[in-house]
Amino acid sequence: MGSTVKRLAVLGSTGSIGQQTLEVVRALPHRFQIVGLAAGKNIDLLAKQINEFKPRFVHYQDKRTQARLANAEYQILSLEDIASHPQVDTVIIATSGKAGLSPTLAAVKAGKNVALANKESLVMAGEIITSEAKLNAAQILPIDSEHSAIWQCLRGETQPAAQLILTASGGPFRHYSLAELNGVTAKQALKHPSWQMGRKVTIDSATLMNKGLEVIEAHWLFDMPFDKIRVLIHPQSIIHSMVEFIDGSLKAQLSYPDMRLPIQHALSYPERLPNPHLPRLDWNNIKDLTFEPPDFDTFPCLKLAIEAGRKGGTYPAVLCAADEVAVESFLSQRIKFTDIARLVEQTLEEHEAIGRPTLEEIMAADAWAREKVRQFITGANR
Amino acid sequence: MGSTVKRLAVLGSTGSIGQQTLEVVRALPHRFQIVGLAAGKNIDLLAKQINEFKPRFVHYQDKRTQARLANAEYQILSLEDIASHPQVDTVIIATSGKAGLSPTLAAVKAGKNVALANKESLVMAGEIITSEAKLNAAQILPIDSEHSAIWQCLRGETQPAAQLILTASGGPFRHYSLAELNGVTAKQALKHPSWQMGRKVTIDSATLMNKGLEVIEAHWLFDMPFDKIRVLIHPQSIIHSMVEFIDGSLKAQLSYPDMRLPIQHALSYPERLPNPHLPRLDWNNIKDLTFEPPDFDTFPCLKLAIEAGRKGGTYPAVLCAADEVAVESFLSQRIKFTDIARLVEQTLEEHEAIGRPTLEEIMAADAWAREKVRQFITGANR
Repeated sequence: MGSTVKRLAVLGSTGSIGQQTLEVVRALPHRFQIVGLAAGKNIDLLAKQINEFKPRFVHYQDKRTQARLANAEYQILSLEDIASHPQVDTVIIATSGKAGLSPTLAAVKAGKNVALANKESLVMAGEIITSEAKLNAAQILPIDSEHSAIWQCLRGETQPAAQLILTASGGPFRHYSLAELNGVTAKQALKHPSWQMGRKVTIDSATLMNKGLEVIEAHWLFDMPFDKIRVLIHPQSIIHSMVEFIDGSLKAQLSYPDMRLPIQHALSYPERLPNPHLPRLDWNNIKDLTFEPPDFDTFPCLKLAIEAGRKGGTYPAVLCAADEVAVESFLSQRIKFTDIARLVEQTLEEHEAIGRPTLEEIMAADAWAREKVRQFITGANR
Repeated sequence: MGSTVKRLAVLGSTGSIGQQTLEVVRALPHRFQIVGLAAGKNIDLLAKQINEFKPRFVHYQDKRTQARLANAEYQILSLEDIASHPQVDTVIIATSGKAGLSPTLAAVKAGKNVALANKESLVMAGEIITSEAKLNAAQILPIDSEHSAIWQCLRGETQPAAQLILTASGGPFRHYSLAELNGVTAKQALKHPSWQMGRKVTIDSATLMNKGLEVIEAHWLFDMPFDKIRVLIHPQSIIHSMVEFIDGSLKAQLSYPDMRLPIQHALSYPERLPNPHLPRLDWNNIKDLTFEPPDFDTFPCLKLAIEAGRKGGTYPAVLCAADEVAVESFLSQRIKFTDIARLVEQTLEEHEAIGRPTLEEIMAADAWAREKVRQFITGANR
């Protein structure tokens, strides 16, 4: 067990996962050092982070702000250059949306350890990224609590799993009818019962699209066929996922819902590190863990995502892009909650997919889908 | 992953664990071969097993019956000679009571894989057995569902656990008051809510003595201090135990309560083998897993066992012996259910313990305790 300091680059450092990553680093300064920070729009927070962690490399989305941030003490680099820099050991991809794809690929090609929180990378380009990772001996270390759970359960096991069981809280609208869902507001959808997350992923959790994207990610991360991945509703979010083995034995990973634990696990792997800031399960207060099957009819996004994953090609990219535009439109009150699934479904139906697409073809499918959803919305609002 | 046939000796083949071991072998004849069988009193069943599995070595408790069993096709050997025979790869110690101790030690000294279901071996002589195992590179493979669960959860982990959590069904008298316990019959106590087991272990489950013995076993098997082993009541018996790691993450092992799974795991380790006879968890029928702290006041055996384990020396042997006599007396309706704990406690109180005892000292403490309990009972009944 070494005790060397790992040099980290956090892409998306001002988002929810990025901030929690920095909390972990703050708690374990003797083990982790921030050498790169990259953010999107929150310049004030990034400036504070730069001040605290003194990174060598910085990236900021807005070119003008980059000029403003320019400073002798660090270099302004592109996301890809930070992700593949020789002075970086582990890249944390905590950017949201398709912006994570290109730096993920750069990191993987450079053979880095890639702690991956960005869903779109694997959903849109799972085949490209996992084959490049294999080719360059890059390790993809999942940060999502579900995939971290599966990864932990698979640890030390030498035979393929029989089944992966991804748990899902069910979101704020569990047991709602379709009619009730029709009227829910963005404010209601943004109140997640167990997890504190960014806005996009919170809405995706409410539609169960998030769980569908996680099924696709699990397919790529653990090389499992879709018919061996199932979703189970578990409202307490204590069991983060399970693995069933070929002898019928299952393993589950448990903790309070706190993203700092899977983040730390990805950063410290293969070691586990004590961190007094992480909560420990209190069995005097855990009386009951409940389970129920997901309601595919009321939450069609789950089915749409799994179906898109199964079909493969450019379908998952179209799914992601259509969902992103639909969720933005819901958050800006241009469409109803139930329109999200409808728009994604319509877009998938009209898509002419390409099998084993190149990155360019994936990006073209993404652009096509965004435009398509906008047309649907504009057409409907006219 | 080899596919060689493992040669097994089953000591205690006519008991509950022994019979289930043979069921596993029957289901996987291409992987396991029975070379030794040993039983206590059930001559008819042993004769059938000999006929079916054609072992090379046989042992039977009653000397006259051994003569009757004598046959050119197999040798009659002592338990110790079977346990250490060069033609045996894995010894399954499924005998109950202290009869398991000597063959366990013989197997361990011969560097065998020892699949251990007998509780008394580790409880009475944990230090001797684990140090001999280390010395002779013998592997102790737990068969108890709780220890199998912990073993599975520790697989691939390279750092010591922070805590072991042994789950317990709570037995048939969970939530009973002391007054209610006072009147329970042997028939009631023999009805376990989730496990089919032998009579002694079923009563021990009802008093929670069984869980206390398992805490002591866990101490020796996993080299864990007693203050890092806790017991949690989980009536559904789906989670068989859990391990908490130093980062606060927990892993649990789950399955229906069916001893064939941990038996098979011990036999097939490090492989897992598909076995169509083993039930797979059906998540459509698992709605609810519940947990509660154990009631140490109403079930004092749990506390007595943990305390005896903590004190060490000859205390655990005295605990085992006193409990065995008390349970027999309860089953033959000579004492009340609540007398079991009382008699064990009185015996422990009167014991003058020896630290780091030899096997002879352990056996002497065992004999002393048995006599003491009989005296207590005779005195009380006079």
